[in-house]
Amino acid sequence: KRQGFPEVIFGEGKDASQIIDISRAMMVKKENILITRVTHSKAEEIIERLPDFQYDHTSRTLFMQNSLDSNHYKGYIAVVCAGTSDLPVAEEAAKTAEAYGVEVRRFYDVGVAGIHRLMAHIDEIRGATVSVIVAGMEGALPSVVGGLASHPIIAVPTSVGYGANFQGLSALLTMLNSCASGISVVNIDNGFGGAYNAVMIHRIANRSS
Amino acid sequence: KRQGFPEVIFGEGKDASQIIDISRAMMVKKENILITRVTHSKAEEIIERLPDFQYDHTSRTLFMQNSLDSNHYKGYIAVVCAGTSDLPVAEEAAKTAEAYGVEVRRFYDVGVAGIHRLMAHIDEIRGATVSVIVAGMEGALPSVVGGLASHPIIAVPTSVGYGANFQGLSALLTMLNSCASGISVVNIDNGFGGAYNAVMIHRIANRSS
Amino acid sequence: KRQGFPEVIFGEGKDASQIIDISRAMMVKKENILITRVTHSKAEEIIERLPDFQYDHTSRTLFMQNSLDSNHYKGYIAVVCAGTSDLPVAEEAAKTAEAYGVEVRRFYDVGVAGIHRLMAHIDEIRGATVSVIVAGMEGALPSVVGGLASHPIIAVPTSVGYGANFQGLSALLTMLNSCASGISVVNIDNGFGGAYNAVMIHRIANRSS
Amino acid sequence: KRQGFPEVIFGEGKDASQIIDISRAMMVKKENILITRVTHSKAEEIIERLPDFQYDHTSRTLFMQNSLDSNHYKGYIAVVCAGTSDLPVAEEAAKTAEAYGVEVRRFYDVGVAGIHRLMAHIDEIRGATVSVIVAGMEGALPSVVGGLASHPIIAVPTSVGYGANFQGLSALLTMLNSCASGISVVNIDNGFGGAYNAVMIHRIANRSS
Amino acid sequence: KRQGFPEVIFGEGKDASQIIDISRAMMVKKENILITRVTHSKAEEIIERLPDFQYDHTSRTLFMQNSLDSNHYKGYIAVVCAGTSDLPVAEEAAKTAEAYGVEVRRFYDVGVAGIHRLMAHIDEIRGATVSVIVAGMEGALPSVVGGLASHPIIAVPTSVGYGANFQGLSALLTMLNSCASGISVVNIDNGFGGAYNAVMIHRIANRSS
Amino acid sequence: KRQGFPEVIFGEGKDASQIIDISRAMMVKKENILITRVTHSKAEEIIERLPDFQYDHTSRTLFMQNSLDSNHYKGYIAVVCAGTSDLPVAEEAAKTAEAYGVEVRRFYDVGVAGIHRLMAHIDEIRGATVSVIVAGMEGALPSVVGGLASHPIIAVPTSVGYGANFQGLSALLTMLNSCASGISVVNIDNGFGGAYNAVMIHRIANRSS
Amino acid sequence: KRQGFPEVIFGEGKDASQIIDISRAMMVKKENILITRVTHSKAEEIIERLPDFQYDHTSRTLFMQNSLDSNHYKGYIAVVCAGTSDLPVAEEAAKTAEAYGVEVRRFYDVGVAGIHRLMAHIDEIRGATVSVIVAGMEGALPSVVGGLASHPIIAVPTSVGYGANFQGLSALLTMLNSCASGISVVNIDNGFGGAYNAVMIHRIANRSS
Amino acid sequence: KRQGFPEVIFGEGKDASQIIDISRAMMVKKENILITRVTHSKAEEIIERLPDFQYDHTSRTLFMQNSLDSNHYKGYIAVVCAGTSDLPVAEEAAKTAEAYGVEVRRFYDVGVAGIHRLMAHIDEIRGATVSVIVAGMEGALPSVVGGLASHPIIAVPTSVGYGANFQGLSALLTMLNSCASGISVVNIDNGFGGAYNAVMIHRIANRSS
Ligand SMILES: Nc1ncnc2c1ncn2[C@@H]1O[C@H](COP(=O)(O)O)[C@@H](O)[C@H]1O
Ligand SMILES: Nc1ncnc2c1ncn2[C@@H]1O[C@H](COP(=O)(O)O)[C@@H](O)[C@H]1O
Ligand SMILES: Nc1ncnc2c1ncn2[C@@H]1O[C@H](COP(=O)(O)O)[C@@H](O)[C@H]1O
Ligand SMILES: Nc1ncnc2c1ncn2[C@@H]1O[C@H](COP(=O)(O)O)[C@@H](O)[C@H]1O
Ligand SMILES: [Mg+2]
Ligand SMILES: [Mg+2]
Ligand SMILES: [Mg+2]
Ligand SMILES: [Mg+2]
Ligand SMILES: [Mg+2]
Ligand SMILES: [Mg+2]
Ligand SMILES: [Mg+2]
Ligand SMILES: [Mg+2]
Repeated sequence: KRQGFPEVIFGEGKDASQIIDISRAMMVKKENILITRVTHSKAEEIIERLPDFQYDHTSRTLFMQNSLDSNHYKGYIAVVCAGTSDLPVAEEAAKTAEAYGVEVRRFYDVGVAGIHRLMAHIDEIRGATVSVIVAGMEGALPSVVGGLASHPIIAVPTSVGYGANFQGLSALLTMLNSCASGISVVNIDNGFGGAYNAVMIHRIANRSS
Repeated sequence: KRQGFPEVIFGEGKDASQIIDISRAMMVKKENILITRVTHSKAEEIIERLPDFQYDHTSRTLFMQNSLDSNHYKGYIAVVCAGTSDLPVAEEAAKTAEAYGVEVRRFYDVGVAGIHRLMAHIDEIRGATVSVIVAGMEGALPSVVGGLASHPIIAVPTSVGYGANFQGLSALLTMLNSCASGISVVNIDNGFGGAYNAVMIHRIANRSS
Repeated sequence: KRQGFPEVIFGEGKDASQIIDISRAMMVKKENILITRVTHSKAEEIIERLPDFQYDHTSRTLFMQNSLDSNHYKGYIAVVCAGTSDLPVAEEAAKTAEAYGVEVRRFYDVGVAGIHRLMAHIDEIRGATVSVIVAGMEGALPSVVGGLASHPIIAVPTSVGYGANFQGLSALLTMLNSCASGISVVNIDNGFGGAYNAVMIHRIANRSS
Repeated sequence: KRQGFPEVIFGEGKDASQIIDISRAMMVKKENILITRVTHSKAEEIIERLPDFQYDHTSRTLFMQNSLDSNHYKGYIAVVCAGTSDLPVAEEAAKTAEAYGVEVRRFYDVGVAGIHRLMAHIDEIRGATVSVIVAGMEGALPSVVGGLASHPIIAVPTSVGYGANFQGLSALLTMLNSCASGISVVNIDNGFGGAYNAVMIHRIANRSS
Repeated sequence: KRQGFPEVIFGEGKDASQIIDISRAMMVKKENILITRVTHSKAEEIIERLPDFQYDHTSRTLFMQNSLDSNHYKGYIAVVCAGTSDLPVAEEAAKTAEAYGVEVRRFYDVGVAGIHRLMAHIDEIRGATVSVIVAGMEGALPSVVGGLASHPIIAVPTSVGYGANFQGLSALLTMLNSCASGISVVNIDNGFGGAYNAVMIHRIANRSS
Repeated sequence: KRQGFPEVIFGEGKDASQIIDISRAMMVKKENILITRVTHSKAEEIIERLPDFQYDHTSRTLFMQNSLDSNHYKGYIAVVCAGTSDLPVAEEAAKTAEAYGVEVRRFYDVGVAGIHRLMAHIDEIRGATVSVIVAGMEGALPSVVGGLASHPIIAVPTSVGYGANFQGLSALLTMLNSCASGISVVNIDNGFGGAYNAVMIHRIANRSS
Repeated sequence: KRQGFPEVIFGEGKDASQIIDISRAMMVKKENILITRVTHSKAEEIIERLPDFQYDHTSRTLFMQNSLDSNHYKGYIAVVCAGTSDLPVAEEAAKTAEAYGVEVRRFYDVGVAGIHRLMAHIDEIRGATVSVIVAGMEGALPSVVGGLASHPIIAVPTSVGYGANFQGLSALLTMLNSCASGISVVNIDNGFGGAYNAVMIHRIANRSS
Repeated sequence: KRQGFPEVIFGEGKDASQIIDISRAMMVKKENILITRVTHSKAEEIIERLPDFQYDHTSRTLFMQNSLDSNHYKGYIAVVCAGTSDLPVAEEAAKTAEAYGVEVRRFYDVGVAGIHRLMAHIDEIRGATVSVIVAGMEGALPSVVGGLASHPIIAVPTSVGYGANFQGLSALLTMLNSCASGISVVNIDNGFGGAYNAVMIHRIANRSS
């Protein structure tokens, strides 16, 4: 764990009592706690015992603020996606970055099949230190933004789609083969990982200032 | 074979003498002949014996004009691709459509990572009856054009790229999963097939006029 | 959205209340609304609140007629499949085309393993502007029809089958590799997309008349 | 080895001198010898030393008649394929069956995209004890014949095609998923295996007569 | 449908009322009816309405004897598998063959990892006209039996196993690549298809006697 | 093209004369030129005409210094790999970063199967702004370094290996599934892309200082 | 069954009553019985009837001690994994080895992304006769341990992870491609198999002493 | 490197001069040197300069004896395969084990489709400490031997075969899914790795004696 960073628990595959035990140990250290991939019912069970957790439905995350984060970064990162179905992954990314004390600007209705909506926001996206771009189905959004912005792009493929999307393989391959430079890729549906990489870069941007 | 259409020979896997035999039979019928997928050396061997064939290096096609095609279609089809590497497939499509008597307009430097170049030509692309969009690597071009144009798009994935493009699988999956409506897909590197579908639609557009 | 076209909502991955909100916004504009991929229980929830929706069990679509569609197209499109298991996808295609104001003729018992049944209907299929051919398992139907008809064919692979069909991969590959010309392919189970492409072509056929 | 059967050598991956040694041992036993998958140049090397071998270019087989086969089977098997590209595999099957003393009838221009050509021969195909059906690309031929004939069909997928045929995977999956009953499948390009299975059945048909 | 054969309904993907309707139509024709892939609960629903159906739990089949099958074939076919987990598919094969009036001998505890158990039965297996060999996991049984018996083998891969069996792909590939001759393969878990091919061959064996 | 950046040509799939033409156009603009993926023989052809190019055998790159790059970045990036076979990709990355004016430190004998060699250099690796980690075969190096360093890691899988490495798929999947945070991935063998992402981050680190 | 070894039942796909029957037959022979892959509810059903079984939740195994195992092996085997999610497979391995009378030492918090934790235990791991190393996600642990220890390593990939882990394929490929020598691999999630191989080697080590 | 072990160089991907340099460094240390995966022409180049190397054509290995290996192990390991095509991999394994000072017994004509040949040698195979079993195509040999012998088996899949063997995937999956216990697997064509694992176990067997 890096200094000033929250504790993060990967909630999938852990039951409520395991999560509660781990959380209690962390609470002693007065650290902020982020738990990803928590189902609604598991969250309720946890909150009943640890009522300081806040649950966010879209991102399926629990968050507990135990210390005021001392980070005061300049600038913001952009989290970009096409719409409704990618929201859980996009919000997992956004909540993660915010848990790390980084300002997030959301651009959530800008799919490649409606390029003008992307264009309407492109200057604000360009203003970010780094973008986390979340896309399922054909996963083409990072290529298009990559051609318009000159900052690093962390591409997050999602499993959204059906048939020949093969549970996210389609978007993953698209992003790995992008003809735009400056794009790197994390695992399918890994909103956390996308944000974590972005946060690292954002901290670098803030280091010497 | 449909009326007024040229004879088309799939040259791959046939040797020069087989192609010459088939061509001679067709020449008797005074039909135009298009041969696709002919290597340079095979073309030379054929032309030595049948000097009326014209070879086109980029598309690797041979063409022989034996009758003046009576087709006088209104309008044009657009053949669109991103650049150098996709040219052989794009030109196989373009030469095929022209062999069928259809006017082709080429848009060959309009990849998604440089969206402004696409935008500079979008009105002329929109003016086509139908577009054949050829793309390798991440194959995102049909999605972007599909969102800007309201005519049918025939998407042709190419095997251009390396690594995780898996010989065209990447572009193929992208196109099948497009979030834009009005896109249908043919086999990897099948420039002929892309054009053939477009020609059918173009003839429908011309039918009643 | 194209003029005179209904609004279409992709129902999968949206809950009843999200769909109701979107529908209400559209109802204000007095447009026809088609919702695809709606489960029975979700449909009941929606109809309770918006009783003008009609639910069709086979295609799993909801439709609401808010304006008399002004389209009066000549001709019809053919929707073709082999039987019981492919019906949901075939009917998604048929209902979609009808929502766009296009006449549909259904040919639903014509699998390749009983070629005479196909032959009994082939003239009427040939009479269509374009065919949407839906097939699972080995997915050979478009190849056979493609050899008998000279209009464009939109092939829709389905996930019907088991074992080595690999959730539709089998039919998808079959269709992409068809030795018949004039066939293009959409995503596995994408009845909507198959119809949408056909409608575009049907409108072209009607444009100048 | 079964009684009255020729010796068969799989030539791929063996050099000329290995094949010559194995053949000599067999010649002592006065048996007929079939060698499959022999390139032209390897065949020349072998024939130079063992001039009783006959080479067949299309099937890439060598054959040496050392005994008059005593088999006098009634009836014939059908070897069926669509055309030029599948010939090497189809002829490997046909030559194999003939080496086993079985009469073969060839039906080599009957692809599914031209169903009338198949229909013109269907009665003679039906008259066979068993069919070996060889097909590449979409591999749909066994399904169609399977619906028209009531004898067993051995389906042989070939690697013929390009792009999304994935070296024969496409035809293989098609055949495994056939909706026609009475079809079983051997390995991609395995003309020998297709014929061997057919010969076994043909001998059963002849056993008690 | 071939003469003297029962009617067979593929029960998967049809609900009880659909199956009842189809069955009633067949009962009128006094034919025997076999329904495959029927879950226990669906079977109960059907039997409540059509009490002449007999349900077999292992094979998940329903059978109704409406006519005394006039087939009196000589000989038997062997159905071979390794044990408990492959029983549903093996019994689907066995029940199918019996529904077609063919005598079946079962060899159900003879996996390749205990070769002596196979050896104890090999003479009786050899005595069959044809074997249907059902195997999951590594699917090696057909290769071993194929080397010991000289009759045709229909190999049925099953999805039994976990991990790198990839739902039956492992056994399927094993069987397609068998180094034993005389093996052909049907779809994963397709006990019906395995038996159907065997029955065809068994009838050929009985034709002229 | 970003300001102060060299022109980069992707040499694969372009012949010598195409590359010469493109280079001449760039030379006019007095920019530095980097060409990647140039075979030895193609390089010789190019240098004969444009003798200011320097060829590097390991990385297969050509470089021409036309302007003194004004970049004076503080700090360095680390390029890390396990040994001989990964050198071409690692050096493509290193030469690319250097062409962009960034100092590179190379750590080329530090595979995971000899962890002590990695440990001997870990402090100097930790001192980098960002690491480009190149690995074939099992591709585990980024996970190990990721656990030891707190800066961003760009992971570059290579196609080095054989058998079940499936041309780099093995290393690619390993890197995408890393249990270490702060790792993002580019295409197989994409040394250029790995470096490009690293350079972007390095420039961010230098921006405000 | 080898002498002195317990009886092992693979519980998956067998219902409680089948398992009870098999167990009773074994109890007569006074042998120890291990049952793997038993769900909690199935275990309860079995214990109700055979109360001498002990259920272990983590490994999902049932064990019944019917004889004092006479094995007194010297030394121990190491079971190594990274943490919580791999525990069920690691414990299946550990319980299996213990059922075979072999001492097991567990190293359960030593993932490659925290190499110091592994280093803290490496001497004790080195002291084992053989290691069973269980890893999901990127599966890199065997490579790292393989470089530090000189005894044989049995690597067990797990299906733990999501997205591009493709149900354990990622870890499986990693382990097969390890650049460390002395690693062999069993099926995904096959804790039993990993332990069985280790036990065989451990007995060899004890044979002559 | 373990004490008393030869130096092993992986020859693939290294040119003659690189191999000569590495060898010279090793010769100074008076160690035995084994080089795997050396083509004939590369071997000649090396021997010209280092004439103490012996080249073995089948296994494609170079060996140089610089010290008398002091290992005097009791017992032997078995290297088992089916025939001609698997010999290069089997001999890579055998030569490797011999370079490590271990006695090897070869069983090279014992494929599963001729089980009696395996049976004729089974007692001698059983007498080995450990078997290395090499198999391509369906890869079933380890399962059969695994059921007959009670020592550990290292299974080596080969890429031998065609079509649906998918370059060794078929044999690899077979071996990973073996229903026999006591089998572990190395990479496709990795004869070296198979032997290395066997040697480790053989040394354990010799340790305390
Ligand atoms: N490049 C191509 N890719 C796919 N199909 C083609 C191509 N060129 C021609 N064809 C088709 O192949 C047919 C001729 O095939 P053939 O009789 O084998 O020469 C033409 O009528 C087209 O339908
Ligand atoms: N278990 C099965 N797997 C594959 N095909 C089957 C199976 N059972 C029946 N069939 C085939 O499906 C046909 C009936 O299909 P349907 O008309 O959909 O009921 C039968 O005539 C058989 O050819
Ligand atoms: N080795 C490489 N792999 C992937 N992309 C590259 C490589 N080298 C250069 N590029 C990219 O390709 C662009 C030039 O492409 P082109 O215009 O086709 O020469 C460069 O600006 C880079 O973005
Ligand atoms: N045929 C082979 N396949 C896989 N690994 C091998 C092979 N031959 C040698 N090796 C391994 O490669 C190491 C040497 O690799 P290198 O340093 O690249 O020459 C040896 O110590 C072995 O661990
Ligand atoms: Mg950019
Ligand atoms: Mg559009
Ligand atoms: Mg047609
Ligand atoms: Mg039939
Ligand atoms: Mg046999
Ligand atoms: Mg780190
Ligand atoms: Mg080691
Ligand atoms: Mg054993």
